[in-house]
This record gives sequence, structure tokens and C-alpha cells, in this order.
Amino acid sequence: RINGDRLWDSLMEMAKIGPGVAGGNNRQTLTDEDAEGRALFQTWCEEAGCEMGLDSMGNMFAMRPGTDPDALPVYVGSHLDTQPTGGKYDGVLGVLGGLEVVRTLNDLGIRTKHPIVVTNWTNEEGTRFAPAMLSSGVFAGIHTESWAKERTDAEGKTFGDELKRIGWEGDEPVGARKMHAMFELHIEQGPILEAEGKDIGVVTHGQGLSWTQVTVTGKDAHTGSTPMPMRRNAGLGMARILEKVDEIAWSHAPHAVGAAGHIDVYPNSRNVIPGKVVFTVDFRSPNLSVIEDMEKRLREEGQKIADDMGLQVAFEKVGGFDPVEFDKGCVQAIRDAAERLGYSHQDIISGAGHDACWINQVAPTAMVMCPCVDGLSHNEAEEISKEWATAGADVLFHAVVETAGI
Amino acid sequence: RINGDRLWDSLMEMAKIGPGVAGGNNRQTLTDEDAEGRALFQTWCEEAGCEMGLDSMGNMFAMRPGTDPDALPVYVGSHLDTQPTGGKYDGVLGVLGGLEVVRTLNDLGIRTKHPIVVTNWTNEEGTRFAPAMLSSGVFAGIHTESWAKERTDAEGKTFGDELKRIGWEGDEPVGARKMHAMFELHIEQGPILEAEGKDIGVVTHGQGLSWTQVTVTGKDAHTGSTPMPMRRNAGLGMARILEKVDEIAWSHAPHAVGAAGHIDVYPNSRNVIPGKVVFTVDFRSPNLSVIEDMEKRLREEGQKIADDMGLQVAFEKVGGFDPVEFDKGCVQAIRDAAERLGYSHQDIISGAGHDACWINQVAPTAMVMCPCVDGLSHNEAEEISKEWATAGADVLFHAVVETAGI
Ligand SMILES: NC(=O)NCCC(=O)O
Ligand SMILES: NC(=O)NCCC(=O)O
Repeated sequence: RINGDRLWDSLMEMAKIGPGVAGGNNRQTLTDEDAEGRALFQTWCEEAGCEMGLDSMGNMFAMRPGTDPDALPVYVGSHLDTQPTGGKYDGVLGVLGGLEVVRTLNDLGIRTKHPIVVTNWTNEEGTRFAPAMLSSGVFAGIHTESWAKERTDAEGKTFGDELKRIGWEGDEPVGARKMHAMFELHIEQGPILEAEGKDIGVVTHGQGLSWTQVTVTGKDAHTGSTPMPMRRNAGLGMARILEKVDEIAWSHAPHAVGAAGHIDVYPNSRNVIPGKVVFTVDFRSPNLSVIEDMEKRLREEGQKIADDMGLQVAFEKVGGFDPVEFDKGCVQAIRDAAERLGYSHQDIISGAGHDACWINQVAPTAMVMCPCVDGLSHNEAEEISKEWATAGADVLFHAVVETAGI
Repeated sequence: RINGDRLWDSLMEMAKIGPGVAGGNNRQTLTDEDAEGRALFQTWCEEAGCEMGLDSMGNMFAMRPGTDPDALPVYVGSHLDTQPTGGKYDGVLGVLGGLEVVRTLNDLGIRTKHPIVVTNWTNEEGTRFAPAMLSSGVFAGIHTESWAKERTDAEGKTFGDELKRIGWEGDEPVGARKMHAMFELHIEQGPILEAEGKDIGVVTHGQGLSWTQVTVTGKDAHTGSTPMPMRRNAGLGMARILEKVDEIAWSHAPHAVGAAGHIDVYPNSRNVIPGKVVFTVDFRSPNLSVIEDMEKRLREEGQKIADDMGLQVAFEKVGGFDPVEFDKGCVQAIRDAAERLGYSHQDIISGAGHDACWINQVAPTAMVMCPCVDGLSHNEAEEISKEWATAGADVLFHAVVETAGI
């Protein structure tokens, strides 16, 4: 069994870096706070006897050697970056849970056959630079590195420049590593496990995601002196499309969700009718055909709304992935571990995207989930209990060690 | 007659300060560009033999002495600040038109009985610091100076600090000056004069304005893993209230308009359901009872929308003024001037707010309007012809000189 107190202490220590305004964290990717969190993680890994590798996307790989020189490593990890108003556990639990696997092996004096590598993937959240899971995506060959490095934040800074600036661009080519398997522990970020009273979610699938950036263009004009019939109000167009997004998602409920989290209005002045609104629609479903239907309807109905209002509208897909089926063998290793340890568990579909979803394309991969209070995540109030964290890391430990062999 | 070429050259010269991105201007109040525009205006005024007064709200008063030591001055002016993506004429034409009155009197060697004072009022636009017409409002006793100086911009900087920073806080007490009359020349910012083929609008009334800041509060949550029924989507609440704002305004058309120009979404991340949206609803009408009805319905229907969605909503009035009736004598002076000069003219209600609307409360006041292309304003593409500017300044000249006496 892993040391739940030690894991918890490390979670609380990491949460001191990039504190939020309401008890959570703002440690967005490639900020100074991200650099500080990385340095702390590296120190801990080196104290645990690991050697740190760093690739040119800033992905971190802390290796604990195995006994068989020919055996590929078992990877375990997640991400340390957070949302602007994020929680203390989203991602962090998976990275520090991986570190706790290594620390526990050290405590027990166990050497595994396969090396074990604890990983921190860069820019999982996708909030500063879209899309999400950017660097695990480059690792898995989904995106090219040069495209990824050109991604820009709201201020126009590029991923590549910011990675250099914080000093965490490594020399190792991205995706060169071969993996025996990869495991990721993550909080559920949804309400199911808590509602069902289960300690562990055995993640068999991940739902797919589609991000469509919508640009509605009207005409800046005076809010006072422009008669109603002459208005080309891009803000009102955005409002009508948002209503349609909700309607489209509900039409597939409970097998789909949809919303827009990001909305920028131009010029954003109280007495100027908005001439332009840019927003990103997030549609998800476990069924690819449902995602495709939602995307299609957004474009068709959005175009219709714009045409009726004399507005222009443009749609650009800025992120997404198809629904994922995780590796049956790795999933079974997690199920077996939960069973063996006596934790209540159930199979579950991940509602969020995770680095494991991309790595699954290049290596046998699976995920462990633990509950979170009220299913709340991407919120500073995100909370889990020490018992849940401990159970999740215990199952992770057993699945990893089982797969890495003794 | 005034010198239309000289007026136009000065307009083009001023437009070089704080250029926009699309041919217009970004010379927002209390920025470095505002300071530069003020300095140029002061130089021109001094070259025209005026002495500059400056009050503690940064209002500028360039005085051309009169012949009667006991006669109160006739004021003429508008504002030099612009929207973030504003035009070259909104406000500027009124200030430089006032300067052209002085320059023309100099050319003709005419001395008026009453002094003439050309004025630049600080922060008319209200885009950086709400409300609009802030400093003419303090002058007229509508707001206290201390309250006005505490207004903050989007970055939290106060009006008072920024006025000091740019070096344009004067010693003169605000509102101490007494006026014989005040005239303001402004572009229409609406489509009526152009459509009717009229050179001059004789502004008899101004419609009233109400700015209500609406704060919708839901719950930040993950866009992927939060089931649809559990969502408290403040973005969707905003969308529904915007639709209602449009419906309310149309229900009073053509005697009302309504829109939201300013919308901020929090935390504004693609994969976070918005937990909070703050936006400002701008309702206007020439009838006070219509404005009151629209405000009331916004609060009632907005509350209902929020209640139905499990959201909180708060309403705060952040600006506004009642419909205005300008001074009959001053209005007649403008009508007579247009008639005498042979310009086609019609009576008109101002759709926008103007410094003249506040000054009207403390002195006999009226406005002259000239057409603008396609009725477009608060847009960098705002355009007028040199002929329109010349006609407007001619009428202004005659109305001012008539009122100031020779
Ligand atoms: N786990 C998580 O929140 N990942 C961010 C990508 C997503 O939006 O699903
Ligand atoms: N004239 C003008 O655009 N003034 C700004 C105040 C308003 O929004 O009416």
C-alpha cells in the first residue's frame, strides 16, 4: 500500500505554487508558476532516485531503472498545469500519484523488471494554448511539433517562445520513447462515482471532444443612435447560437454535452454594438456519430441564424479527438488491482480528455479514477478526500507494479 | 463663413494622434494619446490668442475675451476622447469646430460682447470609465467629483490616478464657471439627416439613456464531465437575457433601442462552463416612461430567467440620464443660422448622449448636428464630408456669434 499521508502532503505542497483566489490554483501552462511547479517536481523525483529526461515540448520523464536492460518502461503520469481558476487535484494527483508509486517501491526495496517513468505532460488543459493535451498529442504523432509551437495565447505569445522563456525546453526528440504501457490516475471531474458510492472508477472509454471556434461578424455601431432595424449585432448573434448549442446538446442527452466556455466580444465597449464575437463551442459524446451530428448542426443552424440577422459567421475546428477505447489488458490490470485491494469499483467512461487518450494511440494505456466532491472540477473549490486519493494511488501502484513485473 | 479647409486640416492633424487599426482612432480618455491630443489643442488655442483654463476634472477652457467685462461667456465645445475603435469626428468636430469659430472671428477682426470659451470635456465616451459624459456631469452637479475620481477602468486604475498621471489635473474648481449659453456641434451618429438629404440637424431633444450592469452567477465546472442537468451555465443565462433585451427594445420600437456592448465572461476558458458573466445593457428612448418600463422588465424577466436556470443575477444601474429638452432660445438661434445661411435643415432628436445634455441643466444649451455616412459611428470607418463639416461649423459660428453679440 502506498503512503496516503505523504501523497497528500505533496499535493498540498504543490498547491502552494500558483495559488488561486479562492483556495484553488492558477498555475497555467508555461507561466513562471508552471516553471516553479516543475522544479519542485524535479527535486522530488531526484530525491527519489530518478533521473529526469526533458523533451523539446517540455514533457518531463523521471525514470526509475528496472532490472531488465531490454524491457521498455511502464509510464505513469498526468499534468501539473491548471486552469486559470482550477483545482488542486486535476492532473496533479496523477503526477504525484506516479511519484508515490516510485517512493513506495523505494520504501519496500522493490526493483521492477521494467523501468518506471513518471511523466508531466505540458499543456494538458488547453486553456492558455488550444488545443488541450497538446504535448501528449505531439508525442503520439497527432500534431507536428512546429504547429504546436506556433499556438498562441490570448496575448499573441507563442507556445514555443513561452516554453523557451521559462527554461523548460529540452533536447530530447518528442515521441522518440517507446512504452511498454502507460497508466494515468485522475479525479473523475464528474458526479458518478460519488453518487454511486464507489472508491474507484475503472476507465474503459473516453468520450470524444470537438472544439469549434465561431466568429460572428456584424458591424460596430452606436448603441444609442443606430435604429434597431439597421443593427448588425454580433453579440445578439452569439446569444442565439449559444441557445442553439444548448438545444443541440440536449437533443442527444444523456449521451452528449455542449457549452461555450470562452467568449470574446469586440470592441467590448458599453456604447458600441458588438461588431465581432469570437467564441469556442465544446461538444462531447462517447459516440463519434453524435459528435459529427452536433458539429454539422452547429454549422448549419449557426449559418442560418447569421443569415437571418445579416451577420457573417465562420467556423473553425480548433481541437478535438475521437472517442477512445482503452487497452483491455491495462483496464483489466486496474480492475484486478481494485478487486484485490478490496476497493469498491465500477467501469466508467471519462467525460474529460486526458493525456492517456492520446498515448493510447501509441501504447497500451488505461486510467484509474477517484471521486471528487459534487463532481466539481475546473473550479477552485474542486475537492477530494485523502481516502479517495489514497485508494486511487493504491490501485495505480498495484496496476503499475503488476505490469512492470518484479 | 468659417474656413472649411482649415477646419478639415485640423481634424486630420488631430486624427494622427492615437491612430486606430482601421483608419479611425483609439484615443481613449486619460491615456498618453489623450494627453498628446490635449497638448495639440492647447497649442492651437494659444496660437489663436486664447488663454487656457483647466479644472480639477481635466476639463479644458480656452477663453477668447469679450468687450463687456460683466458679460458671461458663451461656451462652445465637445470632447477629444474616442472609443477604443472610434472615428475621427465623434466629439472632435465639436471641439475643433469651436476653435474654428475663434479663428474665424480673428480672421474677421470681430470682437464679441460676451467672451467665447472653447471646451474639451474629459471622458465623454464612458468606454474606459463609466458612466459617459462624466466630467460635464460633475460640472453640472450630477455627480460629485470624489465619486467621479473613484471610477475604475477594466484594469482597476482610477480616473483620479490616471488624470494625475497624464498631467492634466488642473486647480480650478469644477462647475465654478457660469455660462451665458453653451453650443455643441456633433456628427449625428445616426442615419436620418443623410437619408433626408439635410445639411443640418437642429437638435431639439436628446433621448434618455439607462445603463444597467448585469452580473449572472452560476458555477464554474468542467464542460466535458459535468452532466447537462447539473450545469449552472452563466453564459447561457447571459444569452437568454440578451435575447430578452432585444425583445424588450423592439416592443417599444421605433421609440426605443437596446443592446449590450460590453460582456465579460469568467474564467473565459474553453473547457470551463462560465461561472460568471458581467455585461452592461444599454437602453434608450426619448420617453422617460419607456426607459423606466424597459429597466423594470429587464430586472423582472432577467430574474425569472436566472431563477429558472438555478442562477443568481444582480442588477446595478451604472449610468444614465433622463430625456433632455434643449433651450428653446438656443435651438432657435441654430435654426435661424441654418435658415440665414441657406442650409437645408430639420429638427432632430439626438440618439446619443452628449456633454450638452448635462450642461443643459445649468445653462441655456443647444446642439447642431451634421450628417455622417451610413449613420455609422463608434466604428473606425465613421466618415463625414468636408462640406458637411463646413456647414455644421458655419451654423455653429452664426449661432455663437449671434448669442455672444457684437
Ligand atoms: N482533464 C481535463 O480537464 N482535461 C482538459 C481537457 C478537457 O477539456 O477535457
Ligand atoms: N456621442 C456619444 O457617442 N457619446 C457617448 C455617450 C453615449 O453612449 O451616448
